[in-house]
Amino acid sequence: MADLSGVQALLFDVFGTVVDWHGSVTSELAALGKEHGIDGDWGAFARTWRKGYLENTRRVAQEGPGAAPGNVDVMHRGILEDILATQQWRAFGEKLTADARDALNLAWHRLHGWPDASPGLYALKKETIIATLSNGNVRLLVDMARYADLPWDVVFSAELFESFKPNPKVYLGAVKHLALEPPACAMVAAHIYDLRAAAALGLRTVYVRRAGEEPPDVGEVRSKADGGEVDVVVDSFTELAALLARRGRS
Amino acid sequence: MADLSGVQALLFDVFGTVVDWHGSVTSELAALGKEHGIDGDWGAFARTWRKGYLENTRRVAQEGPGAAPGNVDVMHRGILEDILATQQWRAFGEKLTADARDALNLAWHRLHGWPDASPGLYALKKETIIATLSNGNVRLLVDMARYADLPWDVVFSAELFESFKPNPKVYLGAVKHLALEPPACAMVAAHIYDLRAAAALGLRTVYVRRAGEEPPDVGEVRSKADGGEVDVVVDSFTELAALLARRGRS
Repeated sequence: MADLSGVQALLFDVFGTVVDWHGSVTSELAALGKEHGIDGDWGAFARTWRKGYLENTRRVAQEGPGAAPGNVDVMHRGILEDILATQQWRAFGEKLTADARDALNLAWHRLHGWPDASPGLYALKKETIIATLSNGNVRLLVDMARYADLPWDVVFSAELFESFKPNPKVYLGAVKHLALEPPACAMVAAHIYDLRAAAALGLRTVYVRRAGEEPPDVGEVRSKADGGEVDVVVDSFTELAALLARRGRS
Repeated sequence: MADLSGVQALLFDVFGTVVDWHGSVTSELAALGKEHGIDGDWGAFARTWRKGYLENTRRVAQEGPGAAPGNVDVMHRGILEDILATQQWRAFGEKLTADARDALNLAWHRLHGWPDASPGLYALKKETIIATLSNGNVRLLVDMARYADLPWDVVFSAELFESFKPNPKVYLGAVKHLALEPPACAMVAAHIYDLRAAAALGLRTVYVRRAGEEPPDVGEVRSKADGGEVDVVVDSFTELAALLARRGRS
């Protein structure tokens, strides 16, 4: 089997890996647009919103000048303002009061899990500790878990470690609070940048294939057994759970 | 009804409030004693162990000299050494190798919930966010939750805020990460000192009566409605859940 021997805790990236942010936010935008008689490429809106967030967190992770780790809600809200001020979306923006924008901003708290996420996590929880390790803030992760029925043992947010992934202190903070050594923890993510940062610190790595989550320049990610760089590649959490259960019995 | 209107999150003290540390540790000690043919007042041993821990954390909470917030496991282990070195327990200590002491120290990870704890928390989780707010370290709280089936939405440990209760930064750290104001959070504890510290910062308070948890000088704790100082007094989490469910329907 793939080498996850000795792993006692799984640390999950959440956006894209556990929840389908793109599908969820796109459909909330489309519904709101329909309500106001506005049409547009809602998928592109969602991607721009997400991209603004990624740029912000990346800047903070690199500890660039003036990069205070803010609350992700506040960050999302600021990016939303910027998008609604563009020529492309101004007509939509004019329909939305401040209250409506606040409500829309909470779309990020109502993300749907990928179909395998909740059942997969329940199965994985029988095998090991399951934790989030997300750049989302704690409250966001808590709301998401309650909404999508994600039975985390513990919610780690980059916010607790005052930075953002891929800054090492985020990964090492989680490992420390679990009272484990890095090789006893595996990072689970649909993004290779996240797994590379974890592997550089000695954590094990599980890559989950999720449609549309990687930028086009990332090619096929393969396991070490297949000549690649990660420990395990799976298509779902249920597949990962089956793999860990076999480990337990062997 | 008692005034918990607007409360969106419950923060639970864990030792004594959720889990019966005294019964659990006493029975592990008694079993180990029996194995080695040693008899003694195991309840007193457990209380001395717990007292050493409380004295240590209190010193750190007051930020006294040299009071680095250590890992609770390490703290428990040090106190165990001290107890086993006393005349009263030396004969027991002589039976225990370093490995046996390490194993015994983990008794604090195998604490049983009070009978109402797990069903009460499942019921409460339908009404509000449920979080730990404990001086125990994260890993200890995670193990305890897995062992006693405690479905926390989020595990807050004083360790994350680099102090111990009743230091204000522990309570305010949890409130901040939940993105709430203090009056939207209620502290739930079987110890009045904990609730007094929370109330002084504007949090609401729920006192849970648990046998043997208060020092003898603490008299009867009463609710404000009964002329006392806390918002609510209950005998179990299931009683608290029924109370919050009525709030939801009124």
